[in-house]
Amino acid sequence: MPYVNIKITREGATPEQKKRLIKGATDLLVEVLGKNPKTTVVVIDEVDTDNWGIGGETVTILRQQA
Amino acid sequence: MPYVNIKITREGATPEQKKRLIKGATDLLVEVLGKNPKTTVVVIDEVDTDNWGIGGETVTILRQQA
Amino acid sequence: MPYVNIKITREGATPEQKKRLIKGATDLLVEVLGKNPKTTVVVIDEVDTDNWGIGGETVTILRQQA
Amino acid sequence: MPYVNIKITREGATPEQKKRLIKGATDLLVEVLGKNPKTTVVVIDEVDTDNWGIGGETVTILRQQA
Amino acid sequence: MPYVNIKITREGATPEQKKRLIKGATDLLVEVLGKNPKTTVVVIDEVDTDNWGIGGETVTILRQQA
Amino acid sequence: MPYVNIKITREGATPEQKKRLIKGATDLLVEVLGKNPKTTVVVIDEVDTDNWGIGGETVTILRQQA
Repeated sequence: MPYVNIKITREGATPEQKKRLIKGATDLLVEVLGKNPKTTVVVIDEVDTDNWGIGGETVTILRQQA
Repeated sequence: MPYVNIKITREGATPEQKKRLIKGATDLLVEVLGKNPKTTVVVIDEVDTDNWGIGGETVTILRQQA
Repeated sequence: MPYVNIKITREGATPEQKKRLIKGATDLLVEVLGKNPKTTVVVIDEVDTDNWGIGGETVTILRQQA
Repeated sequence: MPYVNIKITREGATPEQKKRLIKGATDLLVEVLGKNPKTTVVVIDEVDTDNWGIGGETVTILRQQA
Repeated sequence: MPYVNIKITREGATPEQKKRLIKGATDLLVEVLGKNPKTTVVVIDEVDTDNWGIGGETVTILRQQA
Repeated sequence: MPYVNIKITREGATPEQKKRLIKGATDLLVEVLGKNPKTTVVVIDEVDTDNWGIGGETVTILRQQA
């Protein structure tokens, strides 16, 4: 029954990578807590780099400086 | 003052259906808890089927198998 | 497969009221969008009135003024 | 280490305004709680006006009535 | 920079199990997307069984029926 | 109408500090985007240090090492 929300910046994650995130997060809940995978929900949010900040800076700016 | 967040897969919910979700969720809080509808907020998130998983599978895959 | 999160202030909602919120939110998704109730998840968060603000004031203060 | 999520309606917030929200929220956590800005994360979600409701009405409708 | 939120029912997860969830979710983001673990945040929410519903029923009731 | 969620570790934030967070976040939305403070909601979640991880480690462990 767990619910997992993964927030990442929108920078080109592929459908294949998303499948691996969903499979990996589900497996983690099964292995660590014995949860039922059938009702384990994983939702991935992709967030524009203008809308994500760390250290008081947007990721858009941080990527330009990198 | 309640805040309700409804997450669904992005599969064509119409503006009319969203209105009914917002009205219905607001009414529910009023009826069950006597909350003030004026400050009851409802936010609907529509999530791509590639980004939603259940049972360790993306909904994209599940829809293809259905 | 929908996920609904209801945030309310912690002010004595009873188990019976929570059951009605969960049942009502699930029914809403079934009626409006034809979702499967079996995989519809509802999570209620109860938040201390010190931790909830509206209009720039905590609910603790607003309740004292009411 | 704090995490701040700001949800607003998608009504034309500019990259400059988002930068100010991210900077301002980060500064707030530093000033009030002495948090480390380097690991303070701010995520802005912009939500379509059809998907945001208050008072049981979508913002789309409320904007038309205003 | 990813942010992962894991919501589970409050049914006795130990500090050791939480450590494994945090480590496992962080490793997953590193492996699949090459994210920097140093700024990967994982937050676990434990939710009372009265406050979690699936299939229109609280988990409290479902556990009694099981 | 904005909704702001601030997640911090549960390490003794006082009611006074929470008031400042709520006031500050509300003021920020008013100043930057001209939002109406009356319907601006701020919710603070305090999370146990066992339930918060960064760099693959719980904050409980990180505090012991500091």
